[in-house]
This record gives sequence, C-alpha cells and structure tokens, in this order.
Amino acid sequence: MQTGINRAWVMASRPDGEPTAENFAIDESPIPEPEHGDVLVRTLFMSLDPYMRGRMRSGPSYATPLQPGDVMTGEVVARVEQSRSPMFRVGDTVRSNIGWQEWAAVPAHTVKLVDPELAPISTAVGVLGMPGLTAYFGLLEVCQPRAGDTLVVSAASGAVGGVVGQIGSINGCFVIGIAGSDEKCSYVVNELGFNAAINYKTQNVSEELARLSPAGVDAYFDNVGGTILDAVMDNLADSARIAICGQISQYNAVEVPQGPRNIGSLLRTRSTARGFLVYDFERRHEIGRARLAAWIKEGRLKYREDIVDGFENAPEEFIGLLRGKNFGKLLIKVSD
Amino acid sequence: MQTGINRAWVMASRPDGEPTAENFAIDESPIPEPEHGDVLVRTLFMSLDPYMRGRMRSGPSYATPLQPGDVMTGEVVARVEQSRSPMFRVGDTVRSNIGWQEWAAVPAHTVKLVDPELAPISTAVGVLGMPGLTAYFGLLEVCQPRAGDTLVVSAASGAVGGVVGQIGSINGCFVIGIAGSDEKCSYVVNELGFNAAINYKTQNVSEELARLSPAGVDAYFDNVGGTILDAVMDNLADSARIAICGQISQYNAVEVPQGPRNIGSLLRTRSTARGFLVYDFERRHEIGRARLAAWIKEGRLKYREDIVDGFENAPEEFIGLLRGKNFGKLLIKVSD
Repeated sequence: MQTGINRAWVMASRPDGEPTAENFAIDESPIPEPEHGDVLVRTLFMSLDPYMRGRMRSGPSYATPLQPGDVMTGEVVARVEQSRSPMFRVGDTVRSNIGWQEWAAVPAHTVKLVDPELAPISTAVGVLGMPGLTAYFGLLEVCQPRAGDTLVVSAASGAVGGVVGQIGSINGCFVIGIAGSDEKCSYVVNELGFNAAINYKTQNVSEELARLSPAGVDAYFDNVGGTILDAVMDNLADSARIAICGQISQYNAVEVPQGPRNIGSLLRTRSTARGFLVYDFERRHEIGRARLAAWIKEGRLKYREDIVDGFENAPEEFIGLLRGKNFGKLLIKVSD
Repeated sequence: MQTGINRAWVMASRPDGEPTAENFAIDESPIPEPEHGDVLVRTLFMSLDPYMRGRMRSGPSYATPLQPGDVMTGEVVARVEQSRSPMFRVGDTVRSNIGWQEWAAVPAHTVKLVDPELAPISTAVGVLGMPGLTAYFGLLEVCQPRAGDTLVVSAASGAVGGVVGQIGSINGCFVIGIAGSDEKCSYVVNELGFNAAINYKTQNVSEELARLSPAGVDAYFDNVGGTILDAVMDNLADSARIAICGQISQYNAVEVPQGPRNIGSLLRTRSTARGFLVYDFERRHEIGRARLAAWIKEGRLKYREDIVDGFENAPEEFIGLLRGKNFGKLLIKVSD
C-alpha cells in the first residue's frame, strides 16, 4: 500500500480570455487505493496540448467541458506501481487519460501498454501518441496528399505540424511550413526537411505562399485558423483539401473573432474544408502508430520534445503553449 | 438568308457594388450569317442566374471574367432558324451558351437538342437545365442526404433551392427551407412539400433552426452565404455536410465582407464544407436530367417559373434577381 499525497491540477475557475495562474489550483489528496481490476499508476510525463483550452470553455464542444474543481484533462505516460489486474505488472509503462495529476487508480482496461522498444517512452503521448496520430490521419485521410502537391502546414514546428510536414515529404509533396520564429522556420527546413517555411510574424503569408507556390495550395493542414487560414484561402489550387485540426489562434477569444467572409474561396476553387478528430480514426490507430514508429527507426521521421521538469510548472507552460512559446512537443516531467 | 438586326446586352462597365442600368448597354449588329458547320439560332427564352454577377467581377474566379463590351454570359433556349450542319434541322429547339442576345450563329457541336416531350422547353435552362442539375448533383453528391437527416436549403423558393428541397424529401429527409418572404415560405411548404420554412427577414434563423431541428442540421445546401450560413454553422449536427453552391449575399460586395470566424464549427462537429460546380459532374448530367424529368412526370417534382416578357427588361430583372425580387426560375421571354 502506498502512503503519501497525490497532487492534481484542477481548473479553479474558468478563464476569461487567456488563462492565468489564478485559473489553476493544486488539489491534494491521499494517493488512492486501487480496487479489484484497477492499477495504481504514477505519472512520469504529462502531455500539454492546445486542445485542453477547449475543455476549459463552457460552450458546445465535441467533449464535455470541465467544471471548476475538475482535474485538468490530459494524457500521461505512467508507471504501474500496483496492479490488481492480470493485464499489467508492476513496472509496466502505460499511457492513461488521468489528467494533470501525479497518481491515479484506474480500471486496467482504460490503460494502454507502452512498448519501450519502439522509441523513448515520452513519445507515447507525442510522435507515437495523440499528436502523431492526429498528423498521420488528418494528413492522409483528410488532406489526401498526392505526390507533386503543395502541402502547407501551420504551427509547423509543433507536435502535430512537424509530423504532418515530414509525412507530406514522404508522400512526395512540396511542403511549406508556417511558424512563428526564424529559429522554428530554420528547424523545419534544415532539420525536418520541409521545402520552405514562412515566419508569419515577419512575413506576409499570402504573398509568400503565392511566391513559393504560384499554382496554389493543394492541401492545407490547419492548426491555427485566423489570419493564417485566410492567407491560405486566398491561395487555394482547384480541388484543394483543408483539414481543420485546430484553431489555436481562436482558443483564448472571449467574443467570436471577426474576419473576412472567405468561404466563397471554396466555391471558386471547388475545395473542401473538413474538421476531424484523431478519434474518428481510432480503429486504425495501431496501424498508424506502427508506421510512425517504422519511419522513426528508418530516420525518415524526426521529432523534438520540449520537456520541462516539475509538476508545479504545468499551468505556466500551458499558458506559454497557447502563445506559441514552446518549441516541439511540450511535456512536463513529473517523476523518474 | 436572314436580314435584320440582332440585339445583344453587353457589359458596358464593371459594376461597383450592386449593378445598375448604366452597367449594361444594347449592342446592335446585323443578324450573323452561319458558316459551314454552324447553325443560326434565335432566342426564345433567356436564363438569368445569380452566377452571372461573378462574371462581371475582375477578381479570380473559376471562369474568365467579362471585359467591358463583352456580351453578357448566359444560356438560352432557342430555335434553329438556319442549319449548315447535318446535326440540326430548321425548327429544332436547342439550348446554347450564346449569352444575352437574340440571334447567334454558332458551331453546331456547341448546341444541344432540347426534347420538347420531356417538359415545356423553358425548363431546358431551368429545372431540367443548369439549375436543376446543380440541385441534383450538389445535393446527392456533396450533401449526401440520408433518410432521417435534417436538410436545410437557402434561397429555398429559387430555381435551385426548390429542387434541392424536393429531392431531399424524395430521399426521406426532414427539409427546412429558408426564404425571404412569407409568401415564399408558404410556397415551399404548401406547394413543394418542405417540412418547414424560415423567413430570414422576420425570424431569427439560428433560433428557428434550433427549434425545428434540436439534433442539428445534417446537410446544408448553401446558395447565399453570409449571416444565413453563420446561423447554420451554429446548428450543425456531427458529421454534417455543407455544399457551397452560391454566395449570393456576397456577390455585390465591394470589399470582402466581415463576419464571425466560425470555421471552428467544422472542427467541433467534424463537418465538411465543399464548394462545387455543376460542371464537376458533367459526365453524368444526362442521367440527372432523366431522373429529374421522371420525377416531374410522376408529379413528385414541381417547379415555378418567373417569365418576364421582353429582351429589353433583362438588366432590370437581373438586378432584381440579386435582390431576391423574383419568385421561381427567372426567364426572359425573347420571342415566340
């Protein structure tokens, strides 16, 4: 039996605009006792992802919103510390949706084994987890890239964007990344092998797209929405496919932001915009994970992790993530 | 040999906002002489359609813009008056893209025979022509209606919208029309058999949609864009399909209109918006036309024509069309 204290980050209050430290609070409770069929897990790495901002809103969403006092949503890589199920042994590495907390006792069937042979275990919530699979299925199923296509991806150096661009290259696309600093742009071109990159903070995205791909954009993987989506909408090729994966530029908005009514661009070019979730393709996740792992082993798929030490830093890092402060997949290292 | 004068409406100048009478001028020339392989045709009915406003713009489009002095684009139902081709005989009824003019000599292969047995010949540019086929393919291919779906269509009493809603009913959908007067709303419900209608000028479209279809809108056939599209975007069911067919509310805009950035609704509901043109399905137009004709014969598909006498009235009627003044498929009767 474990003794000691479990810490959990809860949503103390609903943010109004950009979240602040006051919207989060640590809740302490005894480390729970696993019941029959449960495992007790201890968090090693906690994933921080932009979608979590959506859970903090009260409006309609594809998922139930958090209520004040609820533990922040999220997936972790954890170690099994006690097992009351034949499915897991003490010491197994697993991933689990226990949220932002250090310990949890959960039914064994809700936990998935992580294979440490595939890649470092932190990747189970990164390039081999939800972000990597989001990139894989969103690109291949929604963007439907073809060799020779111009593929554009925003938040290009992020956990999803970096994978999207590299799979685009593997598929023979001309890949343009959009990111928020020269360092990130240089990274996606020089490290990840994108064909070009645009710094949206210093360059005119629409003009750069027109210059880099005069025949237009065939596929756009949209992580950000807002003015960058507008710039792509102005540069669509005929029969373009836009995957709406995220709208991070809008997540902190209090009022619905205004922008040009440019959906007519879809008509002019007979293009398609489609929203998707990684869970829409759940039946095939293991296939996707195996392919991503193989590409990593072959050196064709690179990834970058931005690992911050200390459970207590989660809110500050999450706020930074929404500002584009991180560089690569953001993880909190909670224990060894 | 014909003698006499041909009249053609040309775009005298590019409209700035809503077109005015000054943007149009009649150009007179001798009735042309057909060359070998040509037919000389005389216009009976001239079709006026919203898409023609797009041709008057100079910006990028799926079609080449008109230049000042060019004959206004359009399709007509015509009678063959002289034939220098074995394909047609004098007296044949045909449709042809000769634009807004009374006479034209054109290569016979550019002209299509109209079967007067199918339905009144005016329908060759209406319910059995471009508007009817737009409705048929846009609904079935892009909206992908399923029995039990809630289908919404804007400009519901128009040449396209009326057909969309009725094919929706044939497919077992719950059909809601959106139109601009109580008379039009009453028509689509009582004459065309829609399940409900919303008058966007006197009712709150979003609230009415929520009331009429609490489970959301599964398919939306968008003829108008703007605030009506916004209202539908607020009421999407999961996996909804939006066919972007027209954006008539935007066609007279000088600057790009601003509106809410609501493309995130596609993400929230995993929905798809797709622009299409009737020509995307050209290979199957004859199949669509045959089905539409059969439904008319069976009494399952009704249509309404708004026939205005007199070639000289075309610009005024076209301006009214863009304001929603007409009721049913707008045609100019040019000769008997």
